Amino acid sequence: MESSTFVLFGATGDLAKRKIFPALYNLFTDGKLSGPLSVIGLGRRELTNETFQRQVLDSLRTFSRRPVEDTAALQNFLQAFEYSVLDVGRPEDYVKLLGHVQRREEKLGLPQNRMFYLSVGPEFFGEIAGNINASGLGNTKGWKRLIIEKPFGRDLQSARVLNESLSAAFAEEEIFRIDHFLGKPMVQNLEVLKYSNPVLRALWQNRYIANVQITASETVGVEERAGYYDKAGALRDMFQNHMLQLLMMMAMQLPKGSTPEDVRSKKRHVIRSVRPLLPEEVAQHVVRGQYAAGEMRGQQVPAYTAEPGIAATSQNETYIAARLWIEDPLWNDVPFYIRTGKRMKEKSTRIVIEFKEPFNDVHNKNRNKLPLDPNLLVIDIGPHEGISLTLNTKNPLQHGKLEPVSIKHEPGNPDVPEAYENLIYDAMLGDATFFAHWEEVELSWQWVQPIIEATADGSLPLHLYPAGSNGPAAADQLLGEFHWWLDEPENAEPARVHRTAGIEPEVIRPGA
Amino acid sequence: MESSTFVLFGATGDLAKRKIFPALYNLFTDGKLSGPLSVIGLGRRELTNETFQRQVLDSLRTFSRRPVEDTAALQNFLQAFEYSVLDVGRPEDYVKLLGHVQRREEKLGLPQNRMFYLSVGPEFFGEIAGNINASGLGNTKGWKRLIIEKPFGRDLQSARVLNESLSAAFAEEEIFRIDHFLGKPMVQNLEVLKYSNPVLRALWQNRYIANVQITASETVGVEERAGYYDKAGALRDMFQNHMLQLLMMMAMQLPKGSTPEDVRSKKRHVIRSVRPLLPEEVAQHVVRGQYAAGEMRGQQVPAYTAEPGIAATSQNETYIAARLWIEDPLWNDVPFYIRTGKRMKEKSTRIVIEFKEPFNDVHNKNRNKLPLDPNLLVIDIGPHEGISLTLNTKNPLQHGKLEPVSIKHEPGNPDVPEAYENLIYDAMLGDATFFAHWEEVELSWQWVQPIIEATADGSLPLHLYPAGSNGPAAADQLLGEFHWWLDEPENAEPARVHRTAGIEPEVIRPGA
Repeated sequence: MESSTFVLFGATGDLAKRKIFPALYNLFTDGKLSGPLSVIGLGRRELTNETFQRQVLDSLRTFSRRPVEDTAALQNFLQAFEYSVLDVGRPEDYVKLLGHVQRREEKLGLPQNRMFYLSVGPEFFGEIAGNINASGLGNTKGWKRLIIEKPFGRDLQSARVLNESLSAAFAEEEIFRIDHFLGKPMVQNLEVLKYSNPVLRALWQNRYIANVQITASETVGVEERAGYYDKAGALRDMFQNHMLQLLMMMAMQLPKGSTPEDVRSKKRHVIRSVRPLLPEEVAQHVVRGQYAAGEMRGQQVPAYTAEPGIAATSQNETYIAARLWIEDPLWNDVPFYIRTGKRMKEKSTRIVIEFKEPFNDVHNKNRNKLPLDPNLLVIDIGPHEGISLTLNTKNPLQHGKLEPVSIKHEPGNPDVPEAYENLIYDAMLGDATFFAHWEEVELSWQWVQPIIEATADGSLPLHLYPAGSNGPAAADQLLGEFHWWLDEPENAEPARVHRTAGIEPEVIRPGA
Repeated sequence: MESSTFVLFGATGDLAKRKIFPALYNLFTDGKLSGPLSVIGLGRRELTNETFQRQVLDSLRTFSRRPVEDTAALQNFLQAFEYSVLDVGRPEDYVKLLGHVQRREEKLGLPQNRMFYLSVGPEFFGEIAGNINASGLGNTKGWKRLIIEKPFGRDLQSARVLNESLSAAFAEEEIFRIDHFLGKPMVQNLEVLKYSNPVLRALWQNRYIANVQITASETVGVEERAGYYDKAGALRDMFQNHMLQLLMMMAMQLPKGSTPEDVRSKKRHVIRSVRPLLPEEVAQHVVRGQYAAGEMRGQQVPAYTAEPGIAATSQNETYIAARLWIEDPLWNDVPFYIRTGKRMKEKSTRIVIEFKEPFNDVHNKNRNKLPLDPNLLVIDIGPHEGISLTLNTKNPLQHGKLEPVSIKHEPGNPDVPEAYENLIYDAMLGDATFFAHWEEVELSWQWVQPIIEATADGSLPLHLYPAGSNGPAAADQLLGEFHWWLDEPENAEPARVHRTAGIEPEVIRPGA
């Protein structure tokens, strides 16, 4: 890794405190950052370097996964942080910033490698990129890179406008779009599970797979983000980015070579191959939901429309499920079911692969009652990681009755790097494997655009589901002959899986 | 199940006490025995019914897996046991026995179903069968069945003679040959694992499997069985029966129908398809070993030839390993490695399936060092049961280095029926699925016959191995490019597997 200057826009913001400072600290502690560290924080408020460093220290004490001890190393780390005031709209502030960056480069003997991290609202991305360019900040003898985060627009059109404004200042290979799901260890594992495991590679296709279920369910409600969330909804907040990224990671064909560009090219192939939604079919393939009042772990919780900051008439979705088909010889005829929601029964991010049962005609020995449960490969991404395979075996306590058992790998709970540590480290290395390429983003928006339009024109109904449930029953109907697979509720036999019963009751309201 | 009379030859012997009485008791307690129970024990000594019943009770107290409580049910159980003195060579004793059986059948209203269990040395099998026939005991209005145990002869010729003597009195479908390995739950699972699990079915073939390793290793030495064992050796004691049965169970093709006859027919197909050993090739494919003095868990243990009852010059093998090939489109080019021995490092009965690595050419990303470990499916049969699959995954603590992890199913340690319970129950039901058919026995002898001959003519060397080791190094060389896979030693990380290092030192002595 070459050393560089880390220029952080939005250095007094929440993401900086919760994720970015702790990630830098833990990378520093692990010795992963080469050369002298130089971080220049930017914000609208006037702050002294000392105040800024104290804020960094406070953030580490609150959010670092490792304890923060008052050592010389900690002091070195904090000394690397300096602050400049900057109004994103004032070109002269960027010129001042350039001077600051250059002075430190000279003082520390740093090459002109500059990482610009835009931890600010997307409405500022274009202006900042343009000013980086105009001020000469981007005119370096080393590399320059840009890290940005979702949301990348709020529909296909706005995403394209946003991207054009970035493209004026940065080349695609210089832009690192963070989707923090791609920083999770088990998602990163999806890249290698197939090509490094011949048994999985053999099975990873429509000959053996009946369907794939990708779930990201949260138990929390809208929390403090009402203003943002009520405009974004589950579609923009989760589905267009995280969920479609999981789909791409799961379905991409095995790269024999695994350069970052290979991986991204395979992902593009997947998202490009998803059968487009025709406007008149949206309601057949997509289910929107919103949580009603309900009970979670014995506590009554309010409906979405009763949350602070949410209008009582809001038609925003807090849940979305969709059925997708990938038009590719490996995946033809395999439905992919994707769902994400708030105020659901279980907090879980998980991929379940259900295998086909070729032996529905299997001879029914009188002591073994059919039907058998299908084989499942379950990849748990969070909050606990794990891989399990459900097999049918004889229960010796019941004279050989066939029953499903899970064979599992649950890697304790080691102190693993957080998503942001992995991703910032990769960006510093220039490894874009786990960042979203513009075309992935654009193709994802393209795929969801008919859903946005059907929502707007009222042709896509909104289904209520009780808080604490598994979502609206309409989402069960999406699966036809199949069922959503879930873990047993707490306290149940851990080795078993069961089918989700249909959820009831529900009220269907017309779209907005 | 129809009720029957259970006629037990050798009722004062060790097997009766350790296994048969406890099995009957636990089946009785589980309510699996229908109708009134009638057991007639036979032995050379004069015993009263009361003394016999007290012996049964003593055996239950010592060996039953369930506690024995003094209840009315226990008294009913014991009352079902009566005793007759019988000299196996005296025809008139059988006539007396017939009277005894008939009296009880009438008294208890039992149908004339008679189960003859020969818990005696095989040298008596023919005579007993003949006398059952001649006395009219076998001339019943119901069914008659014979249960016998290994050894079935000591070579091909003697096994055929033995079988002919049984055939004079019992049809093949009336003969239930116990191989108690076939009563173990995980071996019985092998029947269904494949056909009830499409993912395993897909993988169970030479396209994906590199080799199969079947191990039954014991930590004990010859114990009190010196007289028998020094004549039998590992070949006759374990290999010809248990090990080849495991091979058949593992490799048999998936029966779509699973009648007992289907299973046995598939097993015969396997053993018939094993490529015969040419006399001049035996030493290439087979390794005989004998344990030398060594250390087991910190204790010095003597050499086989220093054991009580074993001659200092004994050339008997306590270890045998072989490489076999099954000539079948599913298994061509997949070596099967089989080994069994005494005084080995680990007590374990296990099948390891090593999968091929089609990606030796996989692009070597600089952070992932090859070679990858192969995928392994490990079926633990004893002393602990389990199924595990070793996959390569990224280690998030080492920035994505690929490492093998095992995903496992280890079913606690429930109080499952013992092999003898399963087998006696099946024999009473008339279900021969898990009994050895004569042709399996004959074909197994036929396959091992060249080993017997090469041992006798001195062309097959005997390798010494230290007690407490993994066997002679020559057995490692059998595997060529592969290695024996074993669990990590105690106290090691449970999720890892490793290769066995070659064992040393060893001394090669010429055959006897």
